[in-house]
Formats: sequence, structure tokens, C-alpha cells
Amino acid sequence: MNNLNIPETNQPRIVIIGCGFAGLNLAKNLKKQPYQVVMIDKHNYHTFQPLLYQVATAGLEPDSIAYPIRNIFKKQKKFFFRMAEAHSVDTESQIINTNIGPLSYDYLVIATGSATNYFGMERVEKLAIPMKSVPEALNLRSLILQNFEAASLTENLKERERLMNFVIVGAGPTGTELAGALAELKTHVLPNDYPDLDFRRMSIHLIEMADKVLPPMSDFSSKNALEYLESLGVQVWLNTAVQDYDGEMVKTNQKKKLPASTLIWAAGVSGALIDGFAQGEDFAKGRYLVNKLNQIGQHKNVFAIGDVASMLSDENPKGHPMLAQVAIQQGENLAANLAREAKKKEWKAFTYNDMGSMATVGRNKAVAELYNKFMLKGFAGWYVWMMVHLISLVGFRNRLVVLLNWFINYFSYDRKIRLIIRPVNRHSLAEKELALESHKEALNQD
Amino acid sequence: MNNLNIPETNQPRIVIIGCGFAGLNLAKNLKKQPYQVVMIDKHNYHTFQPLLYQVATAGLEPDSIAYPIRNIFKKQKKFFFRMAEAHSVDTESQIINTNIGPLSYDYLVIATGSATNYFGMERVEKLAIPMKSVPEALNLRSLILQNFEAASLTENLKERERLMNFVIVGAGPTGTELAGALAELKTHVLPNDYPDLDFRRMSIHLIEMADKVLPPMSDFSSKNALEYLESLGVQVWLNTAVQDYDGEMVKTNQKKKLPASTLIWAAGVSGALIDGFAQGEDFAKGRYLVNKLNQIGQHKNVFAIGDVASMLSDENPKGHPMLAQVAIQQGENLAANLAREAKKKEWKAFTYNDMGSMATVGRNKAVAELYNKFMLKGFAGWYVWMMVHLISLVGFRNRLVVLLNWFINYFSYDRKIRLIIRPVNRHSLAEKELALESHKEALNQD
Repeated sequence: MNNLNIPETNQPRIVIIGCGFAGLNLAKNLKKQPYQVVMIDKHNYHTFQPLLYQVATAGLEPDSIAYPIRNIFKKQKKFFFRMAEAHSVDTESQIINTNIGPLSYDYLVIATGSATNYFGMERVEKLAIPMKSVPEALNLRSLILQNFEAASLTENLKERERLMNFVIVGAGPTGTELAGALAELKTHVLPNDYPDLDFRRMSIHLIEMADKVLPPMSDFSSKNALEYLESLGVQVWLNTAVQDYDGEMVKTNQKKKLPASTLIWAAGVSGALIDGFAQGEDFAKGRYLVNKLNQIGQHKNVFAIGDVASMLSDENPKGHPMLAQVAIQQGENLAANLAREAKKKEWKAFTYNDMGSMATVGRNKAVAELYNKFMLKGFAGWYVWMMVHLISLVGFRNRLVVLLNWFINYFSYDRKIRLIIRPVNRHSLAEKELALESHKEALNQD
Repeated sequence: MNNLNIPETNQPRIVIIGCGFAGLNLAKNLKKQPYQVVMIDKHNYHTFQPLLYQVATAGLEPDSIAYPIRNIFKKQKKFFFRMAEAHSVDTESQIINTNIGPLSYDYLVIATGSATNYFGMERVEKLAIPMKSVPEALNLRSLILQNFEAASLTENLKERERLMNFVIVGAGPTGTELAGALAELKTHVLPNDYPDLDFRRMSIHLIEMADKVLPPMSDFSSKNALEYLESLGVQVWLNTAVQDYDGEMVKTNQKKKLPASTLIWAAGVSGALIDGFAQGEDFAKGRYLVNKLNQIGQHKNVFAIGDVASMLSDENPKGHPMLAQVAIQQGENLAANLAREAKKKEWKAFTYNDMGSMATVGRNKAVAELYNKFMLKGFAGWYVWMMVHLISLVGFRNRLVVLLNWFINYFSYDRKIRLIIRPVNRHSLAEKELALESHKEALNQD
């Protein structure tokens, strides 16, 4: 076994799968510890997911929110990166199998984050657009613009309206922020580009199963966010769940059907799991069940941190929310425990320090809850949201580029990155639709 | 015929194919003229081609050098844009056929620019990497980085060396600038990312058929550019032509064979032609043969401008060089002539005002010839090169973003956009190689 060409040393090897917030903060904090650290990720960059929606809506380029992993760790000795996808783990022989070969470990940390969950609705999975990665966000950017190019071409008013309609499923931070950003495109940007189209016919729908937007946040935040969304013209459907989609019509559990060529899925997430663990004992609702030390089940040297881990407690009977803060803190805690291990000290259980949460809907329109005490909205919330996101970005350059773009976007009321670099192939979507044609009639006749 | 859903007016319709420098400047200058202007382009953005090589070498993101076409013309009434690819022209019935349908015209202007020309070498065409568009530049960026990821994995030293070698064909401005940028990546950036690799084994070869680099420029510029290239470690092969490539070994008309996984084609260009013209009379060396009014052959209302046009004269017996300046001036001249036409005035012949040319090799290393009188090199040439390119960019935002990135790149000696967003599929290249396997042995036995 050539171990992906990584040299053997006499120090234990920690393999970290995934360079999201959890993996990144774990690896950084292992800098001076007596371990060889091997990071694998399918991308060669860390993605700052909270701003993905701005890539999808032509406000930022990928380089603003993505940072090369090798650059982050270039001064860290004993650190190795391999761009690879992990397929399975053999916890007996302590080997993970990747698309570029097997790799042995002494400690394994799974920090693969979350995957989109369509709750078993296959037709929705085939036709809905996810937004969990930079390529997916770029696909969405292309598709939004391609829709309007296509709407300019058709004389069929129903088809034109479908092309101009967007249905977003899930009113968590991602769905809410995306709906707001689309509404601003509708108000300030797209009518200049497509003067022939009647933008009163463009609708943005936000569908949420719960009885409020931003379900994990306080009623204060939810109420204000809903007001902001409605003031921007977003149609919010609470207590509503998607049941089916045929590429043209979104069917919900309410009477309402929404015609739309584009269904954006920002709803369910589950852990991005890797094969090799026992069903049952190692899992809780699609995530790895971990103890307070982030160990998976009975494995002493296999950990899960961040979105992919579910640590049950009295405060969080369903596990912690899938938030960057949890991931960062679990990464830091595990790094501290591995440092303690090297000194034969006792490990410390993870405790979550909830610093609050926030979401922005539009310019000067945001809600922020700091330490669950200070409730901000409007310009104050928006300003705090911006500062916190700017500071959290990796690298001085990215902060500068994001700040410059925000500055230009704010004062110009424009989004200049309306580029269709890689058009999304409508034919491949259409082919899927064709295969589903037989189901379609039944759906429309309900 | 629905004419791509463009309304009929009582003003003559000018259809412009391509929004490069020529088409862009033609359309802008028709703003106040009594014509309906329809622009079609396969991209929804104008590409500032002179800086493509910086996208390919992780110095700039696409949004720095691409600008949405609809935004350029948003204040121009009677202007219509359609994202489409033109397939053929029927000059009898005055219709062009596109991938989204037919479109009638009163005046047709072909401004499609140039296409990569492999001089009939099919194997080279299949395996070489072109760099004429933003997606191609992004492919090259991915491929450069993927090569080093792969080089880290292999224990085969020959394979590793091939992956670390780059052969660039053509020492015009594009090839020269790309070679210099790659050399700077080698010196300042990549060794930090890949500490396990021995960068003395990385070679950058620049192959040129002529007896000097930057063949259209003065001997002063060629000599200095060659010195800069060699000081950066680029190996320049003059009087050399590529004859074959099997994906591993570049064969030239000299004894020398160069092992390299990556062959970048910046050599031949010919016009990007559209079907529908008579062979012979309408063509000159892969470009449309035009008169001094840019009319193609005998057609009074069909024009070619920019790279795709060949206007023969005593000064330029092979047609003008394929330069942005020629394209811009031909676009402006044709706009002025069409304005004269509306007033029934006489048309004026095109004359080229050569303002000079320039090329940059690296930081503080450039050559510039202004009006063929002032010869600059070193820091002065580099400064002028930067200023001219900054001013020439479309849009205030793009200038600001480019300036910011240049500033950061210059002072950090870094290129932070080392992102593999859409990996280039090596398998599809490999399959091609497989099909060519039988030829390979013969080549190596020569």
C-alpha cells in the first residue's frame, strides 16, 4: 500500500476527511502537536458556505468564498493534503478507501458535512437544483440567467411565466437569504437586462414546513424576517411541504400548485456518510451518533465532527443544529483532546457555546441574535451580519475582495457577475422529464 | 418566422454576430443611428481576451475580464441581444440560421473573431489545450493544478516529470505571456503548495516557428522579451514547429523531443467562419476576404470585421494582424459608414492607425512599442502595459477588481485563485490517447 504517497513517520497519523469548518479548525489546531495530519477533500479549496447564495445570485465570484487548502496549511509541517473522495472505511484494519487508493490511519476524523436530503422523493431529486457546493451555486447562477434568456425567446405566456418563477424549498438561513437575493435581482437588476419581459409576472416562492421562517431562531427574528421577505415581494408559504415536481409544476400538501421551471432545494439535510459503519448503533437520523468526545459508537479512534455528527444531550435531544459554530467548536475541542492524548492527559467532553445566529434578507434588512440576548434587526442586524461574515472569511485577500464587491453592489444596486460561463444543459434535464412524462398527467389531474 | 422573438420595425435591421472587440465597438457606435441592432453571441458576456492568460494562471477570476453584454447596452434603445450560435448564412434570402432559429437581416456583420488552427494535425487537436475563451482558460487553470495533485501521488519519476512539464506552442503575445506567468507560478507559488515535489524538475518550454519571440514586434522587443523569458527559466525553442503529440511526448521538426502531459496551443489562428459563402472568391487564408469597406466579396450588405476579416493592402499583403486595435477601428469605421448610409452620404475606406503593441513577461518585465516610435522595456514597459490594459477593460467595476487583484498579487508574490472548480476529466483525454496507442510506438521509434 503506497498510502497515497504519504511518507511513514513514527508519529501517529490523523486522517481528516473534509475541509469544512470542522475539519479546517481541527487541522489548524493540531499544528504543534506530535501527529502527522493528512487531510483529504474532494475539492482543493475550503468553501465558506454561508455566502454560497451570493455566488448563485451573481453577487460574488467563487474566489471570494473559496480558499485553496494547500495555501492555508503551507506553513504547517507534517501536514499532507490529497484531493480525493473517501468511499468507505474499514475500522478493523484502520484503512479508508478513496478514489485514488487506500490510506491507513491511527485516528480517523469524519468531517464530511451534510448532503442534500430529498426525503425519498426521487422525481424531486432529479429535477430540483441543490446549492451545497461552489459548482452547484455556479450552476444555479447560470440557470437563473438561462431562464430569462429562454423567456425572451418564447411567445407562450405560460411557458414564459414558468421560466420567470422560482420556488425555493426550506426557509432556513440559506433559503431565506437566497429568496431575498433573488427578490433584489428582480427589483434592481433583471428588468434592465430584459426590458421586453413583464417583471410583474416573475414570482419568488419560499416554502417552509414549519409555521415560521428561520425555524431555529426566535419569534422576534422570524417575524421580522417574514416582514422583510414580504416587503421584497417574496411569497412565503408556511406549514407547507413539497410532495412532487414534474419540472413544470410544484405540488404541495396544500391545495396550492406553483408553476415554475426552477425548484431550488434548500430544505432537508442529512450527514454526508461514508460506508463502513454498523447500521443502528452508529447512526441517529442520518448522522453519525457520537458521544461527548465525538467518538462514533464503540470506536475509540474514529470521530465525527460538525454537521455529520449527532451528539445527543438534554439540551439538544436531536443533536446540535447544523451550524458553522458547532463545527468550529467541535473541531477545536477534538484538537485539544488529541493534544491531551499526546500528553496522556484526560479528555474533556464537548460543550457548545451558542454565540447566536443571524440571517440577511436584503440591503439593510437582516436579523441577528447575539448570545441569545441581544436581538438586532434592520440596518443594525445587517451591519453586524456583514462584519461577522467578513471576519469569518479565510484569508486577507478574500475579505478584501468580498468587501470591494459588497461596496460596489450596495452603491450601484447592481450585480455585475451575470455570467453564464458553463451553461447548464437543459437537454439532460429535459430527458429526465421525458422519462417522467407518464407520471405527469396523473399529477396534473389530481 | 418568429425572428427569435425580435419585433419588426420600419428601420433596417443590422445583425452583428459576435461581441468581441469588433462587434462591441460597432454596436456601441450605432447607438443613435436609425437602425435596429441585433447582437448574437454564444456567450452572454464580452471577453477581454488579452488577460485570459491570467485567468488560466490563477491570477484573476472570470468576472475580472468578462462583462455581461446586456449590461453594456442596457441604455441603448432598439438594441436586442440573443445568446445563440450562428450556423450558416443564406445571403440570397438574407437570413442567418442559429441554434435557436432563423433570423432575417438587412445588414449582416460577421465579427466572430478567430478559432484555434492546428494546421490539420488531428492528434494534436485532440490532446492539446486551447485558450481562446473563458471556459477554456478555466480548464487550463484546473489542469495545471490537477497535474501537480497527480504528480504528488506518483512514485514514477518519469511520469512525475511529464506532469510537471508544460509545452506552449506559439510565442506571440498569448504564448509569451502565458509562459512568463507559468514561470512565476513555478518560482513563487507552487513550491509552497507542493513541498514534496522537486521543482528543478519542472520545465516550461515555449516553441516558435519563427526565428524570434513576438514575431510581429520589433527586434528590440523580441530580444528583450527573450531575455526576460530566459531569466525566468523558460526554455525557448525558435525555428521549431510541432509535428506530433501523443499525450506524453511532443515531437518537433528538430531532433528535440519534449516529454509533457500538457501541450498548450497558442499558435495558429484562423477566422471563425460561418457556412454560406462561396469558396474561393470570399476567402483568403481562412479569413473572409473583404474590401476597404469590409464588405465580403460581392455582397453589398454583408461585412466581416476584426480577426475574421482579411483586408489586403500594400502595407498588409496578408491582411491586418489579428489585434484588438484593428478590430476596434474596423468596428468604429463600419459604424460611421452605416451612419453615412442613413444620411445617403458616401462611405469611407478603412485605414489602420497602428498605435503599437506590447507584451508582458513577468513582474516589471514587459516590452511596449507606442506608435512604433517609443520603445519601452522593463518596469516602464510593464507600467504602460498595465495602464493600457486597465483602461481598456469594460466597466468601472472590472477595472477596480483587476487593479485590486494585481495589487495583491504583486505585493504578496502569490496567486490565490488556485481553485479546481470543475476538474478536467482526464479519462476523456485518456480515452483519446488509448485510441491513438497504435500510433505511439511508431512515434517513439523514430
